[in-house]
Amino acid sequence: MDFTHDERTLDLVGRLEAFMTEAVLPAEPVFAEQAQAARDRGEPWTRPPVLRQLQAEARGRGLWNLFLPDAPDGTRHGAGLTNVQYAPLAEVMGRSPHIAPEACNCNAPDTGNMEVLAQFGTPEQQQRWLGPLLDGRIRSAFCMTEPDVASSDATNIRTRIRRDGDDVVVSGRKWWSTGAMDPAAELLVVMGQSADPDDEHVDRHRRQSMVLVPRDTPGVTIVRGLTAFGYDDAHHGGHAEVTFDDVRVPASNLLVGEGEGFAIAQARLGPGRVHHCMRLIGIAERALELMCRRASQRVAFGKPLAAQGVVQAQVASARIAIEQARLLVLKAAWLMDTAGNRAAHTEIQAIKVLVPSVVQQIVDDAIQVHGGAGVSADTPLAELWVAARTLRLADGPDEVHRASLARRELRRWADA
Amino acid sequence: MDFTHDERTLDLVGRLEAFMTEAVLPAEPVFAEQAQAARDRGEPWTRPPVLRQLQAEARGRGLWNLFLPDAPDGTRHGAGLTNVQYAPLAEVMGRSPHIAPEACNCNAPDTGNMEVLAQFGTPEQQQRWLGPLLDGRIRSAFCMTEPDVASSDATNIRTRIRRDGDDVVVSGRKWWSTGAMDPAAELLVVMGQSADPDDEHVDRHRRQSMVLVPRDTPGVTIVRGLTAFGYDDAHHGGHAEVTFDDVRVPASNLLVGEGEGFAIAQARLGPGRVHHCMRLIGIAERALELMCRRASQRVAFGKPLAAQGVVQAQVASARIAIEQARLLVLKAAWLMDTAGNRAAHTEIQAIKVLVPSVVQQIVDDAIQVHGGAGVSADTPLAELWVAARTLRLADGPDEVHRASLARRELRRWADA
Amino acid sequence: MDFTHDERTLDLVGRLEAFMTEAVLPAEPVFAEQAQAARDRGEPWTRPPVLRQLQAEARGRGLWNLFLPDAPDGTRHGAGLTNVQYAPLAEVMGRSPHIAPEACNCNAPDTGNMEVLAQFGTPEQQQRWLGPLLDGRIRSAFCMTEPDVASSDATNIRTRIRRDGDDVVVSGRKWWSTGAMDPAAELLVVMGQSADPDDEHVDRHRRQSMVLVPRDTPGVTIVRGLTAFGYDDAHHGGHAEVTFDDVRVPASNLLVGEGEGFAIAQARLGPGRVHHCMRLIGIAERALELMCRRASQRVAFGKPLAAQGVVQAQVASARIAIEQARLLVLKAAWLMDTAGNRAAHTEIQAIKVLVPSVVQQIVDDAIQVHGGAGVSADTPLAELWVAARTLRLADGPDEVHRASLARRELRRWADA
Amino acid sequence: MDFTHDERTLDLVGRLEAFMTEAVLPAEPVFAEQAQAARDRGEPWTRPPVLRQLQAEARGRGLWNLFLPDAPDGTRHGAGLTNVQYAPLAEVMGRSPHIAPEACNCNAPDTGNMEVLAQFGTPEQQQRWLGPLLDGRIRSAFCMTEPDVASSDATNIRTRIRRDGDDVVVSGRKWWSTGAMDPAAELLVVMGQSADPDDEHVDRHRRQSMVLVPRDTPGVTIVRGLTAFGYDDAHHGGHAEVTFDDVRVPASNLLVGEGEGFAIAQARLGPGRVHHCMRLIGIAERALELMCRRASQRVAFGKPLAAQGVVQAQVASARIAIEQARLLVLKAAWLMDTAGNRAAHTEIQAIKVLVPSVVQQIVDDAIQVHGGAGVSADTPLAELWVAARTLRLADGPDEVHRASLARRELRRWADA
Repeated sequence: MDFTHDERTLDLVGRLEAFMTEAVLPAEPVFAEQAQAARDRGEPWTRPPVLRQLQAEARGRGLWNLFLPDAPDGTRHGAGLTNVQYAPLAEVMGRSPHIAPEACNCNAPDTGNMEVLAQFGTPEQQQRWLGPLLDGRIRSAFCMTEPDVASSDATNIRTRIRRDGDDVVVSGRKWWSTGAMDPAAELLVVMGQSADPDDEHVDRHRRQSMVLVPRDTPGVTIVRGLTAFGYDDAHHGGHAEVTFDDVRVPASNLLVGEGEGFAIAQARLGPGRVHHCMRLIGIAERALELMCRRASQRVAFGKPLAAQGVVQAQVASARIAIEQARLLVLKAAWLMDTAGNRAAHTEIQAIKVLVPSVVQQIVDDAIQVHGGAGVSADTPLAELWVAARTLRLADGPDEVHRASLARRELRRWADA
Repeated sequence: MDFTHDERTLDLVGRLEAFMTEAVLPAEPVFAEQAQAARDRGEPWTRPPVLRQLQAEARGRGLWNLFLPDAPDGTRHGAGLTNVQYAPLAEVMGRSPHIAPEACNCNAPDTGNMEVLAQFGTPEQQQRWLGPLLDGRIRSAFCMTEPDVASSDATNIRTRIRRDGDDVVVSGRKWWSTGAMDPAAELLVVMGQSADPDDEHVDRHRRQSMVLVPRDTPGVTIVRGLTAFGYDDAHHGGHAEVTFDDVRVPASNLLVGEGEGFAIAQARLGPGRVHHCMRLIGIAERALELMCRRASQRVAFGKPLAAQGVVQAQVASARIAIEQARLLVLKAAWLMDTAGNRAAHTEIQAIKVLVPSVVQQIVDDAIQVHGGAGVSADTPLAELWVAARTLRLADGPDEVHRASLARRELRRWADA
Repeated sequence: MDFTHDERTLDLVGRLEAFMTEAVLPAEPVFAEQAQAARDRGEPWTRPPVLRQLQAEARGRGLWNLFLPDAPDGTRHGAGLTNVQYAPLAEVMGRSPHIAPEACNCNAPDTGNMEVLAQFGTPEQQQRWLGPLLDGRIRSAFCMTEPDVASSDATNIRTRIRRDGDDVVVSGRKWWSTGAMDPAAELLVVMGQSADPDDEHVDRHRRQSMVLVPRDTPGVTIVRGLTAFGYDDAHHGGHAEVTFDDVRVPASNLLVGEGEGFAIAQARLGPGRVHHCMRLIGIAERALELMCRRASQRVAFGKPLAAQGVVQAQVASARIAIEQARLLVLKAAWLMDTAGNRAAHTEIQAIKVLVPSVVQQIVDDAIQVHGGAGVSADTPLAELWVAARTLRLADGPDEVHRASLARRELRRWADA
Repeated sequence: MDFTHDERTLDLVGRLEAFMTEAVLPAEPVFAEQAQAARDRGEPWTRPPVLRQLQAEARGRGLWNLFLPDAPDGTRHGAGLTNVQYAPLAEVMGRSPHIAPEACNCNAPDTGNMEVLAQFGTPEQQQRWLGPLLDGRIRSAFCMTEPDVASSDATNIRTRIRRDGDDVVVSGRKWWSTGAMDPAAELLVVMGQSADPDDEHVDRHRRQSMVLVPRDTPGVTIVRGLTAFGYDDAHHGGHAEVTFDDVRVPASNLLVGEGEGFAIAQARLGPGRVHHCMRLIGIAERALELMCRRASQRVAFGKPLAAQGVVQAQVASARIAIEQARLLVLKAAWLMDTAGNRAAHTEIQAIKVLVPSVVQQIVDDAIQVHGGAGVSADTPLAELWVAARTLRLADGPDEVHRASLARRELRRWADA
């Protein structure tokens, strides 16, 4: 048993922390100003230009595409790190979650899309889409969730992907397609049903397909941007509602083939959850730091807030919760690396359920210590809170994962 | 012991519910559209015009100024209801908290300002400000909270109100002055220190004064609107940061006199908290209704969400929490009516601490049942959540009230 | 709306509080000593003699059989109080829950058995059993719960009550028959299936009967006393496991008649829950008082525990929780009095779910403030905690009631 | 980063699990019967004889004194395992916490006393006490907590250890001296003040001494056994209140020397907490197993409890909580092994605060699933619950550790 990171990881963490201190954190107010300026001139759905500078800086520092493991055949597109090696880097980036991941080309949903292309894409698909994504020249979106059904159950999905000669035709309505409001998001990765959802002859998990749809294909309509608790996340391309109205693309745009959608989605989930959770741990560390600083400086009723027992209890609970949550994420990452994603099933579900709730509570406490400043835009806390809260829903609500994890646990003893 | 409302109250509740069903709830989408249109044409900080129509309608139905009790001398400015009589009306209005209270001229902070003017204002002050406010022709703001100090401790306040001949001169910085972004908010009620805050010869609670400052007085600067979790509440005049730079008004604008500010503020708090809490109960009922409807309609994994034990547990917990919270608010109101605000001290603090947390949790559960729709603007839930969350901070954070309530309880037994 | 108790109630509360202060609380150590002495001489399952003295004292003070409302035909067996009138008395008795209720002949399960006999018993049944019970000469037990089935679902019950000529024959196994270890518990009220539990021609709620079984009937075996967290409650007749092995009693011992058992049980539940919950409120008040006293006296790290923010937060939370829980119990009692038990269904279930949990938490906090003394027998806290904890299971676990309450709430909106 | 245990550990875990399955779990009912028989014949405070057989068996299997690391000078008294190696063994023993640890001579407080003797004892002290303890021939108690002061603050301790020529004289009152009711507990390790507690010239943490007192020394009075929630833990020597009335022992019985008591106590705490926490993890696993088995077997309302969403949520929460708590304990153990107890300060406090609460909740949920059986002695759950609950108080209440941990965290950022 050994809780230390290896040298390569420690080196990267050190360099990434320097990048955060020297470049990313100072850029936060610039980013906010540029986002507001873009909004004021009627172009809200674009990345603030400071991101380009930070990306150049990150590349120069060797902090680019850190997330991408080597392909099974050994091909290296990114940094070639394992999940355990990447985890602490994701945490550090999570301390400024609206800037740092994109500065290092490590932001969702592009990371997931790049992983899928690297793992499952044909050479042609990789050339057309993976290259520009790895290079940060374009962005992408993942179109999975639908407004009309409980999408946490993938077999519920109603978007159709119908074969028609050498083409496939996509019809349906998606929402929460993060990033898709930005014209730079040239690629939409779309999940849909390619078999009749009620055809009992086809296995329920073999009815879905995943297809690459250029955003400018006729029939694609970007309907509107959604808000999450008042935030439109415009500076990152927002969260789009998108309709697909008989959208025709070549069948060669299918990933792997018809009926493979569910399997690809599953492969995408494990690393994605580790990334999300580690970024959330970074959010929690940021919130705890802000809470401590504020508590030390703010005086009420004759003493600093830091001297109040209730604040101390919150600080302690936050530290304890962070420490154990981080270990469980690392354990999940380690299991994925050493035993495979399937062996890490329980741990992956556990962190999916656990970490957003824990971090939401820590940020909430930090807000409370900040008073009115905490809910305002003068601190990052309110926006960080929303990031944690929405992840209790994204990729399936807690309730679904908890029930699934429980059934597995119950089975262990039912047989015994 | 009798848990029934009297006939006048039941009659008003019935008429108010009809007004909600027939006018207010149908106006919600109109209100949202008009607010967006105002924003699009660069005039965000104004009330959507549909409010005027609803106000006319409310007046016609006899649902106007319901909040205002008769003055101690018997003067009737409003409906002349007791706290117990008004409470269920505030709850009903709380089901559409961004529209109904203002439609009935019962919205904070105007209600508190009108109460103060009715109770403490000179005839001249009443004529100039109270009349137009009761008539709904102007709005007002209450400038209490300051960014630089823990304002839950009123003795911390740093804004100065300095006597200079027949004038007083106001200097300081305030924020979270709700409504003050709207030019219609012609009156600012400002709290400040009129004695040296460190002068030990003056009682700590006799150093504050409250003064009426017209919003257009030279030296008043409306700096910016604040957001709460991404919402700027622009359609209600937002939440302003305001600076007072040697702002000079006649000394006759003081309320009651120098050193009376703290006492006036205290008088304002009791009813204000009952109003807030009853509106929150209305928010909780709205959220519970939405949760139940959604749970009955939405199917996942082969059955409606309503059939899931976890959802049932949330529904039951919500109902139980609402029932007992409502009773405690009513008890506080009843004590205020029958024994005075001071006798209701514990109950008022109790509901201040209790109700926002309880309602926040209920709305959070309702959001979870709605999935992505819950955090978006397609349901009112996210905005209702923010209303509950911010009330854990407004008028002093929970922690302060809990400690104060506890000290009183502990004293009971320390002497024994 | 009126939150005051009527004069008769206030008078009784005053006299009962005097009885508590002057007689019951001073008797607590005597009771403990006598219970230990009985154990030491090998007669654990008997009431300590001090109870007899307290009963005489209570009778003399007019504090006897307070729980029993008048019969529908106006017959008065007890004090003839309504539920609302009795509720605050049950609370006061709850402050010493192992002594005061029995001192006033108001202890479960005798109260429920007396109510059933008063309401449903024949004159013969009343003469033989109700009289001695009202007089405190004998005790009784209620044999409902069974070890082999989830007894919260009464249709699960497996004990058979079979008609055989003029007799009925009882066979089955019961446990948690509170009080039945004491030979003075001459009467066992037994619930069983009188119809085939799988006979679809008989309504599921018409298959049960309730029968009066003298404890000394051949075939009745008192198997053993159960413990709850190490307490055997021996001084109150313990909690028995009882087997019925072809136990034959005259059919005239049936209450009302065959198939009426479920209906009688339901009638018994409403008042029983109000009693339990009000006694629990009394437990909570006792715990809060002890917590406050200890916190004021105990010094750690240079200041009394009462000065610690975390303790203050617990004190405040306890006070807030008690106030609202009490109101909801009173509301339930008032609804039962004014609109009937059926109309109070939601409130009765709500308090059943709510109050034990709330009180458990308060007692747990009080224990924590007491350190090692809190879990020992040197304070009543550990035993009070067990009383609250077990009531989360008795009369059906929280989960069952929460689900039932939720389904009713969901139905309101499903139809809408 | 590596989450696997080394081979020696895995081998020991395997053999220990076999011992549990083949010997310990089958002995549980025997143990209970023998304990009851001892009580019935008036000798409650003795170990049931089955323990001796299990000890012989454990020795034969090489599962004896597993807890004891090698001394700094390399001397091996026990198994010579590191904290990380021992941790999973303590967890396995924790599944039967009243039998397995003592069967393997790994039970508190003997373990702590043996560690102290091995690390700090003179050869004479080791020969007289350590040998017999390692051999399981005698037992011992640790007399630290006092009824009259908040003993979590060691500087509060009031027992005096006064030098008198070649002797020291001990005077004071202790309680919660676990094991001391058993005459086999021949050694009492006593902590007291050897300097005037108000003498400012002596450092507050240099005023305490620790001394070895034979239980039969004149002046030692074993006053009584205490109960924890009704359990007297008699089968393990109970929890004694002990008075020391001018108890005279040779000064050579001091451990290390005067003024060293605090430092020795601190050295004792780290491993002790890891042991406690790992045993608690074992308790949680046992409770979760029982909960799952019961949920699969018990049917209510037409389906097994395991099919209910609320039960599933509890199962999932338990699994998630266990996984992360175990990792944090292992991290603390690893830090102690690799960087020393001081470097592990935060982690040790974190697990002290975290694990008892988490396990208490899991056992409480398991009890609820079991209904009445859960609180009775028919399952081990009630007694396991008490073990978890009391550890929220033992070695200092959560509140103290949380505040201390928080202050360290706050300091990190106050300086920044």
